[in-house]
Amino acid sequence: MKTPLDGFVLWFTWLACSGKSTTADLVYQLLHERGYKHIQRLDGDDVRQHLCKDLWFSQEDRVKNLERVSFVAELLSKNGAWVIATFISPFEKERKNIRNKVKNYIEVFVDTPLEICEKRDVKGMYGKARSGIIQEFTGVSSPYEIPLNPDIIITTDSPLEENCEKILAYLVAKKYIV
Amino acid sequence: MKTPLDGFVLWFTWLACSGKSTTADLVYQLLHERGYKHIQRLDGDDVRQHLCKDLWFSQEDRVKNLERVSFVAELLSKNGAWVIATFISPFEKERKNIRNKVKNYIEVFVDTPLEICEKRDVKGMYGKARSGIIQEFTGVSSPYEIPLNPDIIITTDSPLEENCEKILAYLVAKKYIV
Repeated sequence: MKTPLDGFVLWFTWLACSGKSTTADLVYQLLHERGYKHIQRLDGDDVRQHLCKDLWFSQEDRVKNLERVSFVAELLSKNGAWVIATFISPFEKERKNIRNKVKNYIEVFVDTPLEICEKRDVKGMYGKARSGIIQEFTGVSSPYEIPLNPDIIITTDSPLEENCEKILAYLVAKKYIV
Repeated sequence: MKTPLDGFVLWFTWLACSGKSTTADLVYQLLHERGYKHIQRLDGDDVRQHLCKDLWFSQEDRVKNLERVSFVAELLSKNGAWVIATFISPFEKERKNIRNKVKNYIEVFVDTPLEICEKRDVKGMYGKARSGIIQEFTGVSSPYEIPLNPDIIITTDSPLEENCEKILAYLVAKKYIV
């Protein structure tokens, strides 16, 4: 069993239904298949259930949510774990804070057009956001600030597998994996 | 540099000023000196500052605090880190929940008599608790349930160094360290 060479945080950002989790899950699986362990998926649902039950989706609560998540990501990565995190994380300031705080932050901008995200709408959330049932929904009624310096950009022009290979190639180039 | 054989959580419980942090800090230092890395201290002050800013010391908030801490301890230990945690953690039910949840939970009961804890009173907290300025203070105005099945008991009958050696000997016996 290979052991991680160094901890890192692979941070997927952009809208709901953009493909963050699907891509992240496959990257996780591919790393596992290559024999790496100590890899931790962190996602919004899981974290909100265990760490942030008290928080909602106001701008203030989104900031608090990311503060707690980044604290956890920091502890994990400095102890050698690989964190694969998927959070909408709409504000550049908070993403920058996380980059400054955690060890080896790698920002992945999942640049899927809003139109496509909305067409997927797996949980019917965009529909509810458009009709006002869900308020402060990122991309519809709450802002998203485009990443200024993402480390990796993936788009729907390439299939899922190619996007994952691009991410793994980045990890190899930066010597996180061999 | 040696790498950890397996993650664990060394959980120190009992009253304020009982010696939890002093003992835990020295255990941390001794493990570091032996060449181990990926060891994470978690303590009440640090966690309340980063993860639980919103929580106070009511029974309900204490439970929430431990829920979040145990989530973090779980993530760290399952990713191979050694967690050295110091929390008053007054309720048997919550300690049992943590034991069930985290990988390799080792409970250290720091059995210092209340009278001695109170005499130390480094931050003047017991004085404030006795005079009612601080409310719901464990051991004075809030209950502490004695651990039913601690893995290690340390007392003030032995000097600090001996207590730490006892803990390290336990880790060797259980094959967490060599």
